[in-house]
Amino acid sequence: MFGSRGSRVNKMFGLYARPVDRGEALSRLRALGLSDEDAQTLFAHFDAAEQAGKEGHGHSRIPWLETQEFDPIARPVRLEQAESFERWSGNGGLGYLAMASICRATLAAPPDRARLVVAEGCFPTGSLGYWARSLADGGLIALIAATSPRRLPAPTGGIPLTGTNPLAIAIPSSDGRPIVADVSMGAVTHGDVIAGRATPDELVPFGGPLAHKAFALAVGLELFVTALAGDEHGAVILVAQPEHDPVPGFRGLADGIRLPGDRA
Amino acid sequence: MFGSRGSRVNKMFGLYARPVDRGEALSRLRALGLSDEDAQTLFAHFDAAEQAGKEGHGHSRIPWLETQEFDPIARPVRLEQAESFERWSGNGGLGYLAMASICRATLAAPPDRARLVVAEGCFPTGSLGYWARSLADGGLIALIAATSPRRLPAPTGGIPLTGTNPLAIAIPSSDGRPIVADVSMGAVTHGDVIAGRATPDELVPFGGPLAHKAFALAVGLELFVTALAGDEHGAVILVAQPEHDPVPGFRGLADGIRLPGDRA
Repeated sequence: MFGSRGSRVNKMFGLYARPVDRGEALSRLRALGLSDEDAQTLFAHFDAAEQAGKEGHGHSRIPWLETQEFDPIARPVRLEQAESFERWSGNGGLGYLAMASICRATLAAPPDRARLVVAEGCFPTGSLGYWARSLADGGLIALIAATSPRRLPAPTGGIPLTGTNPLAIAIPSSDGRPIVADVSMGAVTHGDVIAGRATPDELVPFGGPLAHKAFALAVGLELFVTALAGDEHGAVILVAQPEHDPVPGFRGLADGIRLPGDRA
Repeated sequence: MFGSRGSRVNKMFGLYARPVDRGEALSRLRALGLSDEDAQTLFAHFDAAEQAGKEGHGHSRIPWLETQEFDPIARPVRLEQAESFERWSGNGGLGYLAMASICRATLAAPPDRARLVVAEGCFPTGSLGYWARSLADGGLIALIAATSPRRLPAPTGGIPLTGTNPLAIAIPSSDGRPIVADVSMGAVTHGDVIAGRATPDELVPFGGPLAHKAFALAVGLELFVTALAGDEHGAVILVAQPEHDPVPGFRGLADGIRLPGDRA
C-alpha cells in the first residue's frame, strides 16, 4: 500500500524520474514561459540541491513546477532600500527567483557591517542552504529563515501550526570552504511524504521526546518571518561582514569529522 | 554512585539549596563587590529563570558566582555605535550585566528598522529567552545567539566541538503576551550534569537519530557568533521593528496549545 501510494503520486509528480539533463531541464523550464536566464537560475538551484542529496529541492521540482500556476515573467521588486535594511517582494513570481535576485544584489553591493533583507510573497524559496552558501562564497555571513505551508503540529498533537521552517546559517572561510548549516524542523520532509518515503503522521517536529525544542524553533522562526514579511510566505535574510575567520580552526578541531554542508 | 556524585557536587555548588529569598540574594551578591544596582539586575534574571523552571540559570547561580573570579566593578562598554550596528564588550565583567546594558540601551533608542548588536567577551549570558523577552516586551522582535564552553560532540562522537549554543527568538504581541522560543542544542543541560540529574555522556546534541540537525544548528550558531564576536565567548543580538502582529492570530490557531515561553 505504501509502495502503491508512492507510485501513484510519483506518476503524478514524476518524483522518481531519472535526474533530467541540463538541456532537457532548460527546455522544459522555458516551455513554462520562463526566460532563458531564469531557467538557468532555476536549474542551477535544482541541480545543486540534487547533487547535495536534497532531492526534495532538486530535479523533482521541474515536473512539480509544471503543475503549478505562477507568473513566469514577473520580476521581483525591491520596495525599500537602505544601507542596512531592504524589503523585497516576489511580485507574483517564483520565490526562487526573488532569492536569486536578492543574493545577486547583496553580493554586488554588500553592507558595510550588516543588513536585514525582508522578502515578502517569496515562495517557494527552495534550499535555503544554497542561497546562504552563495552569500558565504561571496564573503558574507548569512542567516536565512523562511516560512512555508503549515505542516507541523505541536508535539502534543492537533492541527499543523507551522511550516517545516528551515534555518540556514553560512560562515565564509579563508580556506574557501564555508560551513553551511541548513536545518528544517521536521522529522521528515513534505517531499518524503509526497514520494511515499514517509507517512503524513511522521511529519512532526524532530527530536522524539525532545520535539518541543524543534517545535519551539519552528514557532519562533514562523513568527519572526511573519512579523517582518506578513502572512504570505516569505523569507528573512541577515547578512553581515565577518570580523573573524573561525572556520579553519574549527575544521582543525573537528579533525575530519563531517561538518554541516560538507559533502558526504 | 549517581546520587553520591550529585551530593558531592551539590555540596560544592549548593545547587539543591532552597531558593534564596530576595534579601539574602542581594546581600550575597553585594558581598561579591557588586553594586546594589548590579545585584538587583542579576537577581531579577536569576529569579525569573527560577520561576520559569530554568533552575540551571536560576538561584543556583548565586553560590556558583561565589566560586567564580570576575571583576565586580567592570562596566560593559559600547565600542561602536551606529543606527543599525553596535559592538559592545563585557570588559571583564559578568556577561549578564553586558546583556542587561545592551537591552536597556536598545530599548531606550530602538532602531528605525533593524540593528545587529555584537557583544564580545560576554559570558555568562544566562537565559537568552529572558533578554529576548525584555526586548519583545518593549515592542521589538529579537533573535539572540550566544556561545559557551564546548560541551557537545558530533553525533558520531569525538571531543566536544560546540557549546550548547542556545537560540532565542521573541516576537512582540498587541495582546501583551510575546512568544519567546529559547532552545539550547543539548539533550540535557550542563547544569543537569553538575547537579547529577544527567550523566556527562547524555550531554550531546538533542534529536536522537536526527541529532545531526541539532548539531548542525550548534555549529552554525557557534561560528556565526564567533565570526562576529571573536574567540572569547560572546553573543549576537538582532532586533527589528515588527511590521505585522502575527501572535494573536497564531494563538487563536493554536487554540489553547501551550506555546514557547508560556507558563506551564
